[in-house]
Amino acid sequence: MNILVFNAGSSSLKFSVFRAGHEDAEELFKGSYERFRDGKCEFRFRHGETDERGTASIAGIDQAVEAIPAVLERFGLTVLDAVGHRVVHGGARFSAAIVLDDAIVAEIDTLTPLAPLHNPANLGAIRLCRRLWPDVPQVAVFDTAFHATNPPFATTYAVPKEWRDAGLRRYGFHGTSHKYVAMRAAQEIGVPASDLQIVSVHLGNGASVCAVNRGKSMDSSMGMTPLEGLVMGTRSGDVDPGAFGFLGRRFGLSTQEIETALNNDSGLKGLTGSSDMRDLEDRAAKSDLDAQLAIEIFAYRARKYVGAYAAAMGGIDAVVFTGGIGENSPSMRRRICDGLEFMGLRLDHDRNQSVHLANRAAPQIQAYGSRVRVFVTETAEQLMIARETAAALTLPAPVNEEIPVAVSARHVHLSASAVETLFGPGYQLTPAKPLRQPGQWAAAERVALAGPKGRLERVAILGPVRPRTQIEVSRTDSFALGIDAPVRESGKLDGTPVVTIAGPAGNLVTDGLIIAARHIHTNPTDAARLGLEDGEYVDVRIGDADRGLTFARTLIRVGANSFTEMHIDTDEGNAAGIGVGDGEEGEILQEAATVRSHSAG
Amino acid sequence: MNILVFNAGSSSLKFSVFRAGHEDAEELFKGSYERFRDGKCEFRFRHGETDERGTASIAGIDQAVEAIPAVLERFGLTVLDAVGHRVVHGGARFSAAIVLDDAIVAEIDTLTPLAPLHNPANLGAIRLCRRLWPDVPQVAVFDTAFHATNPPFATTYAVPKEWRDAGLRRYGFHGTSHKYVAMRAAQEIGVPASDLQIVSVHLGNGASVCAVNRGKSMDSSMGMTPLEGLVMGTRSGDVDPGAFGFLGRRFGLSTQEIETALNNDSGLKGLTGSSDMRDLEDRAAKSDLDAQLAIEIFAYRARKYVGAYAAAMGGIDAVVFTGGIGENSPSMRRRICDGLEFMGLRLDHDRNQSVHLANRAAPQIQAYGSRVRVFVTETAEQLMIARETAAALTLPAPVNEEIPVAVSARHVHLSASAVETLFGPGYQLTPAKPLRQPGQWAAAERVALAGPKGRLERVAILGPVRPRTQIEVSRTDSFALGIDAPVRESGKLDGTPVVTIAGPAGNLVTDGLIIAARHIHTNPTDAARLGLEDGEYVDVRIGDADRGLTFARTLIRVGANSFTEMHIDTDEGNAAGIGVGDGEEGEILQEAATVRSHSAG
Repeated sequence: MNILVFNAGSSSLKFSVFRAGHEDAEELFKGSYERFRDGKCEFRFRHGETDERGTASIAGIDQAVEAIPAVLERFGLTVLDAVGHRVVHGGARFSAAIVLDDAIVAEIDTLTPLAPLHNPANLGAIRLCRRLWPDVPQVAVFDTAFHATNPPFATTYAVPKEWRDAGLRRYGFHGTSHKYVAMRAAQEIGVPASDLQIVSVHLGNGASVCAVNRGKSMDSSMGMTPLEGLVMGTRSGDVDPGAFGFLGRRFGLSTQEIETALNNDSGLKGLTGSSDMRDLEDRAAKSDLDAQLAIEIFAYRARKYVGAYAAAMGGIDAVVFTGGIGENSPSMRRRICDGLEFMGLRLDHDRNQSVHLANRAAPQIQAYGSRVRVFVTETAEQLMIARETAAALTLPAPVNEEIPVAVSARHVHLSASAVETLFGPGYQLTPAKPLRQPGQWAAAERVALAGPKGRLERVAILGPVRPRTQIEVSRTDSFALGIDAPVRESGKLDGTPVVTIAGPAGNLVTDGLIIAARHIHTNPTDAARLGLEDGEYVDVRIGDADRGLTFARTLIRVGANSFTEMHIDTDEGNAAGIGVGDGEEGEILQEAATVRSHSAG
Repeated sequence: MNILVFNAGSSSLKFSVFRAGHEDAEELFKGSYERFRDGKCEFRFRHGETDERGTASIAGIDQAVEAIPAVLERFGLTVLDAVGHRVVHGGARFSAAIVLDDAIVAEIDTLTPLAPLHNPANLGAIRLCRRLWPDVPQVAVFDTAFHATNPPFATTYAVPKEWRDAGLRRYGFHGTSHKYVAMRAAQEIGVPASDLQIVSVHLGNGASVCAVNRGKSMDSSMGMTPLEGLVMGTRSGDVDPGAFGFLGRRFGLSTQEIETALNNDSGLKGLTGSSDMRDLEDRAAKSDLDAQLAIEIFAYRARKYVGAYAAAMGGIDAVVFTGGIGENSPSMRRRICDGLEFMGLRLDHDRNQSVHLANRAAPQIQAYGSRVRVFVTETAEQLMIARETAAALTLPAPVNEEIPVAVSARHVHLSASAVETLFGPGYQLTPAKPLRQPGQWAAAERVALAGPKGRLERVAILGPVRPRTQIEVSRTDSFALGIDAPVRESGKLDGTPVVTIAGPAGNLVTDGLIIAARHIHTNPTDAARLGLEDGEYVDVRIGDADRGLTFARTLIRVGANSFTEMHIDTDEGNAAGIGVGDGEEGEILQEAATVRSHSAG
């Protein structure tokens, strides 16, 4: 399908036409209008071998949008199947690209207080385009959407509840770029993104760092607004919140005046007068102390975020640089990476200096033997908007079918050697009660779990033995133990925390402690009927539409002989008002459930 | 000497009497007045075996201070040699403890805009004590002083110049505590703090993390005010600076109202209603979702700072936990440390659970084989205030003597194998020009240096050959190369960046690139006369008192046959208006210099 992509800012309009599917896209046409002044602006159109530039009598963004149909016609691009719009702020409401209608446009409008500069510009273009191409579906692609998977502990500011309820939380931006470059790196490594821990470093006029944990954004340096985080061209990034009071008392400045200065007169510009890193690098080499300091601050902040996100994810497999500075400044890449050898990252200095990025290349610049890979690649936000637009229009229709739900109480799966450590040499567990999944049973034996905060007694053991010991607890159990257990799929135990299991014959200190990610077991037959694929995530609603509860991101696990049912833990069961029944034997309660829609994660 | 130590907050007064030298101190008496209500307050006095508690008819801090002479008399503590006062904010002016006089008190008063809540309380007690004990010297010890060594790239916010000039920068707090616990850890390791990279994690009602790089504070999480950084009991820590505009528009709140809420109604209290971590840990274990989230946020932020500071310093040797939560919550220590194995840190879970802290113990809780050590220890701010008070009163009088100053242009010291790589097998450098330091010379040969940004030609080689190649450049040279070179003492090359040296016979890629820390070479005879010790730092003024320049933190290096002179690099020479003379041969210019005072670093 042919997709027109819009990126409408407050002072420039970029637009492209792609031939796109949701896996790939080819750019047919690229145009821009910018530098609006005195009723005129500069334009540039690229199409095949053509590269036109010039000045047009166009006074502003709206007029520029209205000029586009004639431009496209001139280049023979008359067939449009969809229009994709970049929208900066999707708030907590939009976690994926969405087809626009009047109601959705109105909902986006309600988010304007969160992004008073950006969203109105995006909405202006959306409204005009819906009038210009009334019969073409229009899709909004949000800068925030990729970060919808950030856990609450990463997005929550420690502020009063009333403020949090009003929407004061971290959202993160540059999501389309971070998602693209992280996926591009995973593709080069040849390992699924879901098995990788990647830090994406987008350094352009706006700049942010993103922790991409197993394919999902976990955290990023921009917060409620694109002002938080790194030092940027004209934005301050992180500042002590005490600064506002100080500036108010000292200079009599209003909040609005301070905010405007932090957005427009700070960052590299505030430190040096220039927001152009190339300019600053040249000045610094000629003894300009302001430029030297600005470069040091810029790099230092970025390096600290790389370290912070490595700590957040428990180490990293790759760093990806993108954005104008990330792509073009070998010395900035060195400043950020030098000294990270302690986390297994070592640059190759020749490779770093000879990076070529044509044709979506993603060269690796780490040294031989560096455990962490380092990539440089051009970002491709327009391309991603085209892909996501295509995907939003071609998603399968939602299925609706009821499946049983089982609540799993805390339990352990033991390895053969763990059984011997806990119960004595040669010991065999006693199958006491069959479970619904074929061949699985609860044992007659129990164990205890111990952590720095406390102890959980009489924990069930599920058999048969497995190659690796795994301990599945609820979130509340993890707090009772005093150990921060990650939410993981069964079997994905790398880097999981250690817990003590106590048995009658001895104690075992072992990793493998997880909060099991909620999931739906199913078999190929049921999966085909339900339109589900192994590894996919779905939302599941439990209860009726008015008062029920929706579990987002429930993993689909297809197994040859699996009985189709959803597994949740006791905290989730409590939230949904479902008990574990005779939980101490690990038994199952059934409840009506409805697979509501595919998540676009 | 007997020292009375004051810690006067806005709602409590703590005071102790120590018998102290500047190396150690013994607490003879410990007292407090707190919970002022309805003209009364609670007191507690501990002295030897005595432990008195009760309620006193004392309405506020001032009255409490006035009551102290009678209390001390009752316990027989009538001889006081000094009074030491904790002062929260020393601004950029005070980098060490200082003996108070009217002028200094007035200077501290000018810092009130930076700490409008804390400094007035400290100053109130100071003024009263100067009246109560007019003949006893009084010393101010600043929470900010330990952080005076933070480099500008860590302290500078990317904000407009006018704001920076008014004092809006990062200062850091809890300095007395971070200094004490980092030194305590170094003492346990048995290695000088100047060879260690330590992260100090102070988790109390106020909380901050500090990067202690080779004995000096490099960065810490509190900023211009104690509001920035970690989540605290009632303080938010880091918040998007865009929050102020949003809250103003959404709730009509003033800057002052927002600041007050961020200080008093945020943090753990804002998230859960309680600022008490023990309470929250119990609630979390009983399914309280708010308490669970608050604990996760608290730990996640702290863990990210540990990672950030590891990246800032290029890896760490130790983490030290202190403060009420750091000392008493094994599960919080685990939450912060779990997942840091990628940087060589692994806890021992048994040791973590069985920490005993009596008698200034500093137990280690890392696992066997963990490259990074993890300590827990009680902080001792009062003790440190006593020590620093004693030190401020017993510092030697400043010496004043002129010494020559030499400007060193960029140069390299080569190893024998480096000479062969660059000039060919068996090559010997040609001594061309003797230097003033005995036995040293500049070679006739030159090399070039290359980095990602550019190349420096005709760089001097100083002989004779050394065991390890070392490349000394100026700050500006490092920008011309595009490599972030650290300021280091000669010979301290661990973790220094790699640069390419180009010679006629080949290129050498080697670490060892540094900006040489300015230093004074001297010999034992001159050192004795000048009152200098090897490894000590002094300030040096060049030029006259009105228009001259002072170089802070100049290292003293005593060598048996050294000629006494100060070495600075070309950037420093330019700043001081001293040229390198015939710099291309590495020659020396002389200039009058005055050793003005010992730094109390």
